[in-house]
Amino acid sequence: MIKERVEKLRALMAQKNIDAYIIPTDDFHGSEYVGDYFKCRAYISGFTGSAGTAVVTADKAGLWTDGRYFIQAAQELSGSGIDLYKMGNPGVPTIEEFLLDELNDGAVLGFDGRTMVYSGAERLKKELAAKNVRLAYEEDLIGMIWDGRPQISKKPAWLLPLEFAGVSREDKIAQIREQMKKENADVFLLTSLDDIAWLLNFRGGDVYCNTVVLSYAVITEKQILLFTDAEKFEAAALDELAKAGVTLKEYDDVYEYVKGIKGTVWADPSKANYKLIKNLSPDTDIRYGRNFTLLPKAVKNETEIDNMRRTHIKDGAAITKLIYFLKHRESGSVLTEMDVDAKIEEFRGEQAGYIEPSFETISAYGPSAAIVHYTADEASNRTLEDKGLILIDTGGTYMGGTTDITRTIALGPLTDTEKKHYTAVLKGNLDLGATEFPQGTRGINLDAIARRPIWAIGCDYNHGTGHGIGYMLNVHEGPNSIRNKVADSIEESAELQPGMITSNEPGIYIENSHGIRLETLVLCCEKIVSDGEAEIPMLYFETLTLVPYDLDAVVPEMLSEEQKNVLNSYHARVYDEISPLLTKEETEWLKYATRSI
Amino acid sequence: MIKERVEKLRALMAQKNIDAYIIPTDDFHGSEYVGDYFKCRAYISGFTGSAGTAVVTADKAGLWTDGRYFIQAAQELSGSGIDLYKMGNPGVPTIEEFLLDELNDGAVLGFDGRTMVYSGAERLKKELAAKNVRLAYEEDLIGMIWDGRPQISKKPAWLLPLEFAGVSREDKIAQIREQMKKENADVFLLTSLDDIAWLLNFRGGDVYCNTVVLSYAVITEKQILLFTDAEKFEAAALDELAKAGVTLKEYDDVYEYVKGIKGTVWADPSKANYKLIKNLSPDTDIRYGRNFTLLPKAVKNETEIDNMRRTHIKDGAAITKLIYFLKHRESGSVLTEMDVDAKIEEFRGEQAGYIEPSFETISAYGPSAAIVHYTADEASNRTLEDKGLILIDTGGTYMGGTTDITRTIALGPLTDTEKKHYTAVLKGNLDLGATEFPQGTRGINLDAIARRPIWAIGCDYNHGTGHGIGYMLNVHEGPNSIRNKVADSIEESAELQPGMITSNEPGIYIENSHGIRLETLVLCCEKIVSDGEAEIPMLYFETLTLVPYDLDAVVPEMLSEEQKNVLNSYHARVYDEISPLLTKEETEWLKYATRSI
Repeated sequence: MIKERVEKLRALMAQKNIDAYIIPTDDFHGSEYVGDYFKCRAYISGFTGSAGTAVVTADKAGLWTDGRYFIQAAQELSGSGIDLYKMGNPGVPTIEEFLLDELNDGAVLGFDGRTMVYSGAERLKKELAAKNVRLAYEEDLIGMIWDGRPQISKKPAWLLPLEFAGVSREDKIAQIREQMKKENADVFLLTSLDDIAWLLNFRGGDVYCNTVVLSYAVITEKQILLFTDAEKFEAAALDELAKAGVTLKEYDDVYEYVKGIKGTVWADPSKANYKLIKNLSPDTDIRYGRNFTLLPKAVKNETEIDNMRRTHIKDGAAITKLIYFLKHRESGSVLTEMDVDAKIEEFRGEQAGYIEPSFETISAYGPSAAIVHYTADEASNRTLEDKGLILIDTGGTYMGGTTDITRTIALGPLTDTEKKHYTAVLKGNLDLGATEFPQGTRGINLDAIARRPIWAIGCDYNHGTGHGIGYMLNVHEGPNSIRNKVADSIEESAELQPGMITSNEPGIYIENSHGIRLETLVLCCEKIVSDGEAEIPMLYFETLTLVPYDLDAVVPEMLSEEQKNVLNSYHARVYDEISPLLTKEETEWLKYATRSI
Repeated sequence: MIKERVEKLRALMAQKNIDAYIIPTDDFHGSEYVGDYFKCRAYISGFTGSAGTAVVTADKAGLWTDGRYFIQAAQELSGSGIDLYKMGNPGVPTIEEFLLDELNDGAVLGFDGRTMVYSGAERLKKELAAKNVRLAYEEDLIGMIWDGRPQISKKPAWLLPLEFAGVSREDKIAQIREQMKKENADVFLLTSLDDIAWLLNFRGGDVYCNTVVLSYAVITEKQILLFTDAEKFEAAALDELAKAGVTLKEYDDVYEYVKGIKGTVWADPSKANYKLIKNLSPDTDIRYGRNFTLLPKAVKNETEIDNMRRTHIKDGAAITKLIYFLKHRESGSVLTEMDVDAKIEEFRGEQAGYIEPSFETISAYGPSAAIVHYTADEASNRTLEDKGLILIDTGGTYMGGTTDITRTIALGPLTDTEKKHYTAVLKGNLDLGATEFPQGTRGINLDAIARRPIWAIGCDYNHGTGHGIGYMLNVHEGPNSIRNKVADSIEESAELQPGMITSNEPGIYIENSHGIRLETLVLCCEKIVSDGEAEIPMLYFETLTLVPYDLDAVVPEMLSEEQKNVLNSYHARVYDEISPLLTKEETEWLKYATRSI
């Protein structure tokens, strides 16, 4: 079936004089998660992972993906005639190297220009400059051959009331227009879905786990054009939007519309897609910079912060109930990783205002947990035993906030190594959470504070320590993060500011044995300290997440006095905040689970 | 006198149609410290600080310097007709802003092209592009008016024996030529003095505190031209250099010589001066990158490391003797900051192989210590009292290594705040020194580990935590450093590698009260840790500096058990290594000063 699809694509490529065709994972908005309509790469290759790129030439076809997916991709590509290129493995060419080898001088490289962000396509062009490659980005060849392509999402969209948004769309628009003025931008092209939803205070369901609405926005001093399916909105909502000066246009019409734009256009090259930018008239003056919405979206307002605090009490209760359930399951009862996932959904569902998961839960028992991006499926699904550790990384979107928490839970006796590793990860999480720091500090400065106790026992983890998180939006949101890598762009490790919410999630992963990660969300706050004369503003973290760590997995002697104090006072807070939402049995257990050590 | 000099310069500028003339601090090699011959900025302005730039136009004259020198510059410029521009103060224009204001379109901006590095001049040109400024960089106008200019240094140069260099110049040259080949560079233009001294295994005395020789090197596959004053070398040394394929040319002749260079030329734009690069023929293909010598110079070889260890025992004894002397001085005896400086020179002079200070000692008592780059002079010189803290930041160059140490010493009773601050700085220094970390870690990742305990009491310090250090060369050396600022270039915060030596120097400075800094040099080392199956290489720091901290200033309850252990085992090491070089009285005292707490 895959072979037939590839042959159909090749026939079309020949007809259109295209020598190679690239099929990326992106939707038209550079989204991290995409709807079914956009899953062209999965359609053409059969590979269903969340990251990967297919490339087809007249006689070759390849799929590039990273280490998370080597096994899955090999299985899914088997018999398809598509070669697997294991990215990062020695001797494996990159897509650019492959294309430089395969293409003749002056060749035509095709792709749907809507599925590649501008900066990505420009980089590709530059790297293929030696072969004078021409880009044919106008047409969606997969769309032309895809029989039975899923309909584009038509999920309803709804307005976010002011008591949840905190700031009206009128005020947000005024704020953005001020920034446009400062930068002399006549037109602001906004194409990332969470930014549009934030700016116009609406939410929807077009992308699984992200409450966003497929749309593009074109903002000028006088008007706001919103290119989207108007049928998603109720009449009253459309009225509200109209009152704020928002005019609706057909979703697809944006590509024709932008051809007529005049003046100075501001766009984020890492968010806006290639076709949209290329469709701008040569008379416009394009200025590239980050979206004006990026920073005000990341710095949560007081209403958002209050709601996030309340949401974390509800989510904390749901996850605490899950831990109680796991700790008290009957010996011999059969429970799988996927059952645990379902149980989480059940406990969250009991909480008021729960909407949907904020990402696919990682429920990983024993060796499964050593795979950082593991998702249990029918084939991998492990049954829990009365020993060892289960790692649960899960989040929910509620009316009032988004959560993202990881707890690793002892299901019975642990080995000394498991306990040592758990305690080292706990130390890292506690140390980072209790760090105070001055203004101007970036995530890259703080990352090592979480790693230090883990390095001290000869371990490390191959992922960042923290990411920004949206408010009823994407679970991964910039520009704040806590990472050790020097970023390509400064935006990837912005200065931490009061109101930003970031995750704190160190871990240890031992292949074929166990995996541990402890994740809390922390709100950046400010306080004034005085040392004699000077009043100095210092920043600190308030931990929003309210779920006990597992004292069954802790080696108390490994903790410093400071760490014990931080742990004990956090546990006291968890008990105070969460117990009112629990049953009597759960409360009694929580009292013990949060005891001072 | 200054007015006359400026008028002479203006007359010359008018004659040569130059509208503005810039006089920077640099010598011709981008050195941090410069010889008297190069002190043109001090000559024309009267300002003698180590950093600053003078600019003269037909009717204005200005001096730009930073916060360290505001007071000194104001005094020295008084009555000169030269305006002081306090860099970084609100409303104060930068040099570029000043020039954009003052210059007409098409104006001519003059400077001695040898005194500005290429990247600096290019940046200037770019920032003045709006005024189509032409650069006149050919002539040294200050040299033309400077009566009685000091002679250029003629200090003797000498070859570094292999038992000190560790690797022969022939092997180093071969290694550099391999890198040239890899980068397809026909010619490597090397102009930084410490790099040339490292490569050719010689040392000299042309710059105070830096054992370097004024020179330029032009390296090709077949030959090495060394542009320097041959008279500085003894005949035998010249023979040795000739054997290694080094041909000597006159120092000044390099500017004519480079005009004839053909092929691909490799140069470091942050080190090579503007005139030298501009003199290259347009037919050459210039490739900019860091000097090939940078990394092998920073990664010390086994011989250098062994010698550095031995040097630190001698230097540790000298500074320990100083502390003993300070702690046991007779009550009522008059001792000033400058006396302490002289005393250090005396104690170092007693150690075998001592050559000279590696930088100007900071001997700062009480409030003086709050000024980070303080140097005591006749005017500022404080007399020590029987209370409070003295901060001593000092280093020496020996046959076998370079040291750089800071200790802050209690001269009597301390306030609770002084003790709290001392202990916080100690915690930072100990924590960073005891951190283990994986390959790939950069200084920017580790910086916050030293700051965290200082942040925790509401303080911070406005300087980096550590800099690389040369081996019998510059006390500040890249590319390794430990800093919190995101660097302009990745080179400024390179990955730490085994063999690199970096300083570890957190501090706290309270204006008008006291200043504390504790500095040790740490050698990056590698060890293999095994956690069950995997063998993982981890890096750690070996502390080279061997001088006790001052337990009189420590609040033991503020230290964690880990910090106490690190402190106690360091102190045990100090006692073992240093006591053999001390008198009986000093040894007895050291035993107590290094007791376990």
